Amino acid sequence: MQLTTQWIVGFVDGEGCFYIGLNKKKDLIQEYQVLPEFSVVQHKRDIKLLYALKNFFGCGVVRNNKGKDSNIMQYRVRGQKDLLEKIIPFFQKHKLKSIKNVNFKKFRNVLLLIEKSEHLTIEGIQKIKIFLNNE
Amino acid sequence: MQLTTQWIVGFVDGEGCFYIGLNKKKDLIQEYQVLPEFSVVQHKRDIKLLYALKNFFGCGVVRNNKGKDSNIMQYRVRGQKDLLEKIIPFFQKHKLKSIKNVNFKKFRNVLLLIEKSEHLTIEGIQKIKIFLNNE
Repeated sequence: MQLTTQWIVGFVDGEGCFYIGLNKKKDLIQEYQVLPEFSVVQHKRDIKLLYALKNFFGCGVVRNNKGKDSNIMQYRVRGQKDLLEKIIPFFQKHKLKSIKNVNFKKFRNVLLLIEKSEHLTIEGIQKIKIFLNNE
Repeated sequence: MQLTTQWIVGFVDGEGCFYIGLNKKKDLIQEYQVLPEFSVVQHKRDIKLLYALKNFFGCGVVRNNKGKDSNIMQYRVRGQKDLLEKIIPFFQKHKLKSIKNVNFKKFRNVLLLIEKSEHLTIEGIQKIKIFLNNE
């Protein structure tokens, strides 16, 4: 299945998610683990769309969303290199039209901090928290 | 806001709904009232997208989805003429990529029956029920 860029933008405006997880981890040297994730969720009936996205972006995985018996499937990208080199440039070039573009901008800002290893410092984590809390 | 056709297809693949309501009505001459509806639902944050769809298709209304205090808004088209002349030709030309294309085909078949007034006959209602039940 061939996807067009504008179809992808429209579909992600509907179904996509740009998420930054902040896990408090006492056992790590840094206090927080920063877990960025781009995902698109669909019922398994439309799993071919998720594989088409994986094929288009050339990265990520298609997995059950909630346990292996779930009917809900997820295309997700967690790798920093893939996010920085494939996902972010795409949505930087082809702008989302919904409020998700605000989430995307925060997501991009956090990834740019991670790229500079700022997320390993207390100041960097503070910056990330500010990005995530500000509308 | 300018929408492209492919963005609309992607967005409707995510968020759109083609629905045929069949209301049993003892007080009508015909036993069933057939109520076709195309709709797209969004949080009110993205109400501008719904108005952009209304503007693009040149028909339909933007309304609260569930009571006037709801944060969920809906773009919907119920008029038979608008569905037959604007919505159906668009998605006939620009194919949906998700399973919603199956729903769209059923929706189109029912609208074509309505156009010929077949929904006013017992046989027509039987045909509609078969369309709606068959995958």
